[in-house]
Order: sequence, then C-alpha cells, then structure tokens
Amino acid sequence: MPTATERATTSLGAQKLAQAQSILAEHDLDAWLTVVRESKERPDPTLRYFLDVEFTWTTFFLVTERNATALVATFDAPDVEKAGVFDEVRTYKEGPKAALLEMLDRAKPRRIGINVSEDDPLADGLTAGLRDYLATVLAGTPHADRLVPAGSFIAHLRSVKLDAERQRIERAIEATEGMFDRVRDAIAIGMTAREIAARAHSEADRLGVPTAWPRRHCPTVTVGPHAAVGHVAPGDEKVTPGCVIHMDFGIVLDGYCSDLQRLWYVAPAGSDQAPDAVRRAYAAVIEAIDRSARALRPGVAGWEVDQIARAHLVQSGYPEYAHALGHHLGRAVHDGGGVLGPRWERYGQEPYAPVRVGNVFTLEPSVWLDGHGLVSLEDDVVVTPDGARFLSRFPRELPVLRRA
Amino acid sequence: MPTATERATTSLGAQKLAQAQSILAEHDLDAWLTVVRESKERPDPTLRYFLDVEFTWTTFFLVTERNATALVATFDAPDVEKAGVFDEVRTYKEGPKAALLEMLDRAKPRRIGINVSEDDPLADGLTAGLRDYLATVLAGTPHADRLVPAGSFIAHLRSVKLDAERQRIERAIEATEGMFDRVRDAIAIGMTAREIAARAHSEADRLGVPTAWPRRHCPTVTVGPHAAVGHVAPGDEKVTPGCVIHMDFGIVLDGYCSDLQRLWYVAPAGSDQAPDAVRRAYAAVIEAIDRSARALRPGVAGWEVDQIARAHLVQSGYPEYAHALGHHLGRAVHDGGGVLGPRWERYGQEPYAPVRVGNVFTLEPSVWLDGHGLVSLEDDVVVTPDGARFLSRFPRELPVLRRA
Repeated sequence: MPTATERATTSLGAQKLAQAQSILAEHDLDAWLTVVRESKERPDPTLRYFLDVEFTWTTFFLVTERNATALVATFDAPDVEKAGVFDEVRTYKEGPKAALLEMLDRAKPRRIGINVSEDDPLADGLTAGLRDYLATVLAGTPHADRLVPAGSFIAHLRSVKLDAERQRIERAIEATEGMFDRVRDAIAIGMTAREIAARAHSEADRLGVPTAWPRRHCPTVTVGPHAAVGHVAPGDEKVTPGCVIHMDFGIVLDGYCSDLQRLWYVAPAGSDQAPDAVRRAYAAVIEAIDRSARALRPGVAGWEVDQIARAHLVQSGYPEYAHALGHHLGRAVHDGGGVLGPRWERYGQEPYAPVRVGNVFTLEPSVWLDGHGLVSLEDDVVVTPDGARFLSRFPRELPVLRRA
Repeated sequence: MPTATERATTSLGAQKLAQAQSILAEHDLDAWLTVVRESKERPDPTLRYFLDVEFTWTTFFLVTERNATALVATFDAPDVEKAGVFDEVRTYKEGPKAALLEMLDRAKPRRIGINVSEDDPLADGLTAGLRDYLATVLAGTPHADRLVPAGSFIAHLRSVKLDAERQRIERAIEATEGMFDRVRDAIAIGMTAREIAARAHSEADRLGVPTAWPRRHCPTVTVGPHAAVGHVAPGDEKVTPGCVIHMDFGIVLDGYCSDLQRLWYVAPAGSDQAPDAVRRAYAAVIEAIDRSARALRPGVAGWEVDQIARAHLVQSGYPEYAHALGHHLGRAVHDGGGVLGPRWERYGQEPYAPVRVGNVFTLEPSVWLDGHGLVSLEDDVVVTPDGARFLSRFPRELPVLRRA
C-alpha cells in the first residue's frame, strides 16, 4: 500500500505530467526527453516532479502530447511501474539503444526538448557527458539533429504552479511564520547567532521537515553590524541591547519550500523604540517591497520589477543591494525559470523571462546599515491575473523585543 | 571552532587536492576546472572531496600542479574562505567572466580538464548548459579549444583511495557487519521483509548515519521465491520455516559508504540444515567471489574479473546474473571510475578501466534459485600490490536460523 504522502506525490506527479503535455506545443516541441543515471549523485531536478525514485543505470523518459514512456534497466524498473505515472515502462538488460531508437521512431518527433539551459540551473538537468552519449547513440539516425534545449519549456513547467503546488507552498509558509514567532520569543540577551539558528533547527525538527537550503546556513542569522553577510553559517555574535537581529529561514513541507526573512530590534533598558536610522531603513525596505509587488503583473520582465525596488532604495540614499530582488519558489528554494534581478552578467537571460500567472516569487530587497547591520525583509507572493497576492506578511512596524 | 568532523573533512579535502595535483600530468592535463551552480539541486559529486559547501551562483575551481583557486560570487564566499583548502578565493559581484579569463591567462594551461564523461556518471559532474556557457564565455580566446573531458583523471582521483579514505570505508564496513548480526538475531517467523528493513533502519538511526542509497530500498530484503528483485522497496513477504532471506545494506559513515549482502536460511522444525540446492548455490557464489578476488590484481581490466565469476556460475549450471560482479565503493556507493562488469552496451567503456592499487571494490555475484529465491553475497575488497584483501567476511557456511 502506498502511504498517503506517496499517493499525494503520485497524484501531483500525474498532474504535472499532464501540464507538461499541455504546454509542449506552445514551446514548439513534439517531445520532451529526460535522461538520468546514478541520479542520487547527479539528480535532474525536473524528475522529482513525477517520481521520487533514484536510478542507477541510464534511464529515459520520453513525453509527447499523448504518451509518456519510461525506458529503464531491469533492476531499476519495479518502483517506476508501481508509481503508475507513465503510460508505459519498458526495460532493458544489456543496453538501451535499440529500445530508445524504437521509441523515437514511433513518436516521430520533429523537435525533441532536452534539459539544457545556459542560464537557468534548474532547467539544466542533463549532464554534458549524457548529451555526448545521446549524440553518439543517435548518430546516423534522423533524430540526431532534432534535440533542442528545452529551457523555456522547463521554466514554464516549474514556474507556473498548479493549485496543489501553491497550496503546499502556502502551508510551508504558514508553518514557517509560526516558527519565526517562536524563535523570536526565545531570543534573550547574550544568545549567539548560532544559538538562535539552533532554535530554528529545533522548530524544523519538531515538525520533522528539512530546511529549505543546507542546514549549515539555514537559517542565516545576522546579529549586529559585525557579522558576515551571505550564505554563511551563523557565528558567535551575541544579542546585545540595541542590536538588530535578522533571520533568513525556510523549510520544505510536502516537497515545497518556504523562504522568509524577518528583522527584530532589541530595545535597551529605558527605551522602547529603535533608532530613527533603523526605522527609516525598515520603512524603506517595506516600501521597496510594496512598490515592486504592485509592478509584479503578468507579462512584465523580471528586471523591470527588480529595478523598481533597487531604484527606490538607492534614491532613498542606501547602498545598492548586491543580489536579485527575488526568485521563484517551489520544489527548489531558488526555483529557476527566471529571476527578479538586474541585467548583470551573472544572471544571463534570466532577468528577461516574462512573469506568468501562477508564478510564486520571493521579494527580498536589503539595506546594509553601517553601525547597525543588515536590514532586510522577505515575503512570498503569487502572481494572479490582477497582480501579486502576498502569501506571507511581515509586520509593518519594526518589531521591538524588550529583554531588559 | 570547527567540529572534529569538520577538521577531519578539511584535512582530507587538502589531501585529495594534493592527490589531484600530483596526477594531473599523468593524465596530460595542465589544469582542472570544476564549474557548479545551484549545487544543492545540481551537485557535482567531485566537489564533495574538497568542500562541504553549496553554491548558488556559478562557481569555478581551477586547479593546477602548484595552485588551487576558487572564483565565487560574493555571498557564497565566506564559507569557502573559512574552509581554507584553496590557495586563493576570488569573488565577483556582477559576473565572473573577466576574473575567469584572468585566472586562465595566468595559468596558461595547454589542456584544461572538465568534468565530462560519456560512460562514468561520477566523472560527469558538469551540466550540458554549463559546458555551453563555458564555450560562450571562452569564445574568441585561446582557451576555447583547450577544454577536454577529464574522465580518466577523475576516475583515478576517485578510485585510488588514500589511506584515510580506506580507513573510513573500513569503519563503515565494521559498523555495518554488526548491524547485520543484530538484524539477523531479531528475525522471527512471520516478520515481513518490510519489518526486517525497518530493523536495519533503526540500527542506522541509532548510529545517526544515513543509509548508503535511498532508504526506501536500502536495505533491499528478499524473502523467499516470490519477492521482486532489484532496486525495489521491501514488501510484505513473510519469513516462513524453510525460507531464504537475503539482505543488501550499507551506510555512510564520515562520508564513506559500506555495501554488503548476507544470506540466511530459516530452518523448519526438526531440521537444522538447508536443502542441498541452497547450500550448493551458496558455495558456488562463494567460489565465484574467491576466484574473482584472486584475479583482482593491479592492471587487470574489470571485465576480465567479472568474466571469471560469471563463467564459474554459468558452468555450475546457474542462470547468468544480469548485473556487474562489482563496483567501486567510496564517497558514493557506486563510486564510478570503472566497473567489474561485462562488456555490455550499458556499461560503455567502464569494464575496460584498469584496476589500480588502492581501489576498493564490491564483489557481488548472484544466483536466482527457482523455488528458493535470491542467493547472493557481497563483500568489499581493497586492491594491494599483491592482490585483493577482504575488508569484510561473509560466513563460509550458509547461516541457519533456528526459530521454531
């Protein structure tokens, strides 16, 4: 008997497969071919949509508008058959070549999408050696010239969330907001960033869920003006009266991620509000989020949305943040398929991807405030036909912790 | 303060880096370039040798005989710097291209190995899109034509274990042998394969270690003649008097894997030995392992060793096993870098890789015995200048469980 989670995964897997089939033509593809091997060590992130199974030997998934076939080595086959997502599961013993060619001959695809993208890491699931292998196997057949990178197709499939996917993200966000509140309540003078992170870990452990990115730096906790910033493990900086505490944290619930940032100010004895500079920065970050959220509508390019938040903070006199305003959120915490980011070299074509209904994004502009530290917030939003809807909500006023 | 495990990892990382530098010339490489991005979702298995860090943005590791440089986006940099394995950690904000070209211009490599292999999944860490990206970035520079697949180099680096690596594997094996004994002692009439697997999981949990392959089918437990065979989750088959129980199990201890198989026969009341057919098959499998172990010497090709075990079982009247005799064992359970397997299409060039001193292999021939089930054993061996030395040892006589 499959467990409830397995059944739910299967059912969502079948829904995503149907979605894939329904958008093939829009991306001028007749077929979509995913190829993996030793997938525990070299996973293709796309495969997780359909199967929670690892493959030792070279395995092929050929999807056309009407048919989905898996070609699997004998010993890898039983669990794929049991999953019941694919119309047909073919097996091979000595080698897959003959069966693969037969599948392609039968499907007669003009253009076969493969999981390759120069710019989108999540659409770049094929390894370079497996692409060489495909070229070798297809050499001399009419299929050799039919392979095309399927980046835009995979971006679409990943980034346009089905209702069931958005609901999972919402549940992850809701659980995470509760965790933030409990971590906040546990903060005391003298606690280190590392201890605050441990408190967040115990929250995730209590729910029995993994963190959204590697636990070593999930959460990042930035206490005061001397902490290192970035994807870095929390350090020994201590909570002191008058300090700013920032936490960036997310979990994976039922296979989908949350990703939130919150900020707290620790009031010194006899005071109950943060310095003007901190409050102003907090308000500026909120305003940057609100402005960019208003601009986040179907059809807009990611860079245009980033530009609004970026310009607001720079015009408010703050240093320009050295990252993107936001990213897609889904099975992966950086879910690929475009970015709300600047047209910098490192983002390639990603900032030009158009926003679509059903996208779920983070919005996370930041300010580095000398003498105080990192002032940054992050909320998650879904794009509707009428614009962005917030799935989470930070406090409109900077929360002040009284711990004297 | 780094933990003891972190210090040990760092130190082993430095040792593996030194090993890499020392074998570059042997593989006609002047430099070795590893490129990753979103490495949690798309890990390059080679990177784990040096760093237990994940990278969001495109990150480059250039290793020459004398120098090892990392080029990392600003926010990803702090943990690489802290690891202290690389001589130099350069950072970039908007894009890495200028710094990458400068690094290459300085190193002046004639041949730059990249992590690409048609046949060896563990040496195939580069994604197809990142190779396209490299081609784009290097276009018009003298470096464009210098990229060559580094499969043989990575195979060498992975498969020739340092003493510290072999010791970790030995500790994993020793812990696993104890687990097998305790699982065996807990077996009772009426237990299902699934319940036996749960007992193995609780052993791994008690030690706080992951299983060597996905927990859903690690261990595989095959009870009697009607169970599915392969990489399949244990089912509801019950232990009955007179049945054969097979378990294939491994763990990861300090980053290195064990992989063992054991067989037990459950004696019916009034009997204390297995049927002749089962005992003969058990002896034939042992003989196949012993013969192939004697042939496992430096310089022999993997397929020649497989052939000895395969031929012995076929000549003894058993069906030919539909898999390889054995595989490398290390950080990954199928550690890449060649296979002790037949020259079948699906193994590509892997069966031709020469055995080297320092290799650690599994030996796991199997027999399917109609009416009884799977008769298979697996031990792990290290290759010394004088031949194979067993790191584990199955019982020479089929163990009989008396549970009446």
